[in-house]
Amino acid sequence: MTHPSPRTDTTAVPRTAVVIVGAGPAGLTLGNILRAASVDCVVLEAESREFIERRPRAGVLEEWAVRGLQRRGLAENLLARAEVHTECEFRFEGRRHRLPYAELTGQHHYVYPQPLLVTDLVREYADVHGGDIRFGVRDVRLHGLDTEHPSVSYDCPQTGQRRLVRCDFVAGCDGARGVTRAALPAERVRVARHDYGIGWLALLAQAPPSSDCVVFGIHPRGFAGHMARSPEVTRYYLQCPPGDDPGNWSDERVWAELRERLGAADAPPLTEGPLIEKRVLDMHNYVVEPQTAGPLFLAGDAAHLTAPIAAKGMNLALHDAFLLGDALVARLGKGDTSGLGEYAARSLRRVWDYQEFSQWLSEIYHGTASGDPYRAGTTLARLRRLFTSPTAATAFAEQYLGTDGTS
Amino acid sequence: MTHPSPRTDTTAVPRTAVVIVGAGPAGLTLGNILRAASVDCVVLEAESREFIERRPRAGVLEEWAVRGLQRRGLAENLLARAEVHTECEFRFEGRRHRLPYAELTGQHHYVYPQPLLVTDLVREYADVHGGDIRFGVRDVRLHGLDTEHPSVSYDCPQTGQRRLVRCDFVAGCDGARGVTRAALPAERVRVARHDYGIGWLALLAQAPPSSDCVVFGIHPRGFAGHMARSPEVTRYYLQCPPGDDPGNWSDERVWAELRERLGAADAPPLTEGPLIEKRVLDMHNYVVEPQTAGPLFLAGDAAHLTAPIAAKGMNLALHDAFLLGDALVARLGKGDTSGLGEYAARSLRRVWDYQEFSQWLSEIYHGTASGDPYRAGTTLARLRRLFTSPTAATAFAEQYLGTDGTS
Repeated sequence: MTHPSPRTDTTAVPRTAVVIVGAGPAGLTLGNILRAASVDCVVLEAESREFIERRPRAGVLEEWAVRGLQRRGLAENLLARAEVHTECEFRFEGRRHRLPYAELTGQHHYVYPQPLLVTDLVREYADVHGGDIRFGVRDVRLHGLDTEHPSVSYDCPQTGQRRLVRCDFVAGCDGARGVTRAALPAERVRVARHDYGIGWLALLAQAPPSSDCVVFGIHPRGFAGHMARSPEVTRYYLQCPPGDDPGNWSDERVWAELRERLGAADAPPLTEGPLIEKRVLDMHNYVVEPQTAGPLFLAGDAAHLTAPIAAKGMNLALHDAFLLGDALVARLGKGDTSGLGEYAARSLRRVWDYQEFSQWLSEIYHGTASGDPYRAGTTLARLRRLFTSPTAATAFAEQYLGTDGTS
Repeated sequence: MTHPSPRTDTTAVPRTAVVIVGAGPAGLTLGNILRAASVDCVVLEAESREFIERRPRAGVLEEWAVRGLQRRGLAENLLARAEVHTECEFRFEGRRHRLPYAELTGQHHYVYPQPLLVTDLVREYADVHGGDIRFGVRDVRLHGLDTEHPSVSYDCPQTGQRRLVRCDFVAGCDGARGVTRAALPAERVRVARHDYGIGWLALLAQAPPSSDCVVFGIHPRGFAGHMARSPEVTRYYLQCPPGDDPGNWSDERVWAELRERLGAADAPPLTEGPLIEKRVLDMHNYVVEPQTAGPLFLAGDAAHLTAPIAAKGMNLALHDAFLLGDALVARLGKGDTSGLGEYAARSLRRVWDYQEFSQWLSEIYHGTASGDPYRAGTTLARLRRLFTSPTAATAFAEQYLGTDGTS
């Protein structure tokens, strides 16, 4: 929904070219692209700077996304500190199978936790370039999206007063639970949804990694995952019923399930330790079409969500930010509207490609535990094929790394 | 179920090494392999020779299957007369997209209608080698499968009398509606089933083909297919509700739907003509595990059915016949039991691989017409990827042609 324009003496209202709602990877990357091109913008963020610089999130970046940040001068710390991943391991039927995706594609995964990237992007935007970013804003509302003079209002955390910013464009980068999506006209928007009916228990263990790479355990009892986080902390996942209570998962039960589901004849034992986080994630996706309306452009999770199955979320957010940033710079700098016109279609192309891969991969992760012997049979065939056909392995690696030339 | 051995003076009962129930591609290929190795066998077939030599069935053979027949001296006519197919065409979003699978894999499809292959195989088995084949048998029953002396009884169509044949092994090649599958011990057998909830209206048009290759129409109104049969007759398919009445499909309605679903800006118009066959096929699959019990070995559709989605059925029947034939020859000639011991696992490996591909391809064919915008989005992404990633196209071609090295 869009709100009526507040009754204000607009001559006194501050003005900017672009209001960016949300300071996640999409909003901050977009802000940096605009600032580098001397396009005026304001970033509004509901949380504090400290909060967003620590908010735990995954951090798998595809090589094209890293190169995109690098070209825009935003990857210095990332390239110095990110871990480069070159292979992953599937365990099924009691055996280990390595998939050397970097060897197959010439590209890598970079693992750089989202809070670190956000910290870099805030520093670059606010501290280095003096960009306008307002933290802790409340009750953000969009106005006049059906006019040529949109504006955004919010409660200022310092004064408690209502503030208004006029602009030419609004970028909705406020994530899955943000407010900007609701401003799209309901009668013209279609939200395609998919609920896997599956939960993942996300765990952080105070224990060194148990493997030198990401491990996927495919097991009739359910999926299990292993991802190194640091020399002292390891991320694990366990498939569980959606909405399950983490209280159902004692440390003993967690480790017993992990041992079982990640077990393989030739695998080293898991290095166990106290579990310092237990959260249940429900696996669902959505895609909003179109993700634009007049001067409003959604980017990242505000427009499309992918369950963490294939670690695609942050990459899609950056893809949107690159497209939208370049398009806004072209429009505001040279009056070239073509980028904005193509934005939704170009974004969606990669979004749907990644959604398709997530679906395909979800079947590999969860099919053997579905209780349906037919699905279990086709799932194992799909999995085995990755290790009998080099072409199938390369096709997987392309999708895993997002290297199919859609960018 | 297995029947008790009939009370007969067994010294007077005829004896053979292998009784083959069913004279389709699996049973006849198996019979020829056994005869060529001088292994005694009897083929029992419920229908007449004339009937099985004319029964209309599809006829897509993969290159490895053709080479398997050729190595066994069973492909002379086939190689002289089969059409060689090298590419197929997908039409979606109003455009044509060719997929040159032969160029991508170095292998081909051979199109040779099943009745022609059956005719060749019967002639080779019965007329050339004097193999024992009994047509028109009724009420076939298997006996003593839990003993070392199995036997098969049936009603003789000439005398109306009950006949009994003792043997060492029984090959169940009697198809999806045969009797041998029921002789597997129910408590040890699992039948994995999948029903697509989809029908295909199979049509034969008295009209020349409308394209020089197989065409798949992917359309929100449902799948449509085009396959040349001869210069005068063309096979078409239209997705329809399962169990639909062909009477609902007037010629006018059929052609209107075909024009719509196979329409593309740059496609020549369909060559229309009278429809000489209209049948509704319900799309479902099953896989029986294990497909063996003591001296009984199932092969082909008796053990596993794949909906005609990927044209895999006859290929799997031949794969089983090659494996089982070689295994029985080794066992009966040299006492080598290893082939029989591995038969089910080796058969199932290709079966599940093909089931997986059929599932994957079914989603391409039917996803855009599912009414679910999420499935429509991922389906179109899957389809587009075939024409943007050469690796994805090659992976498709490998599965389409069954060339992944599992044979």
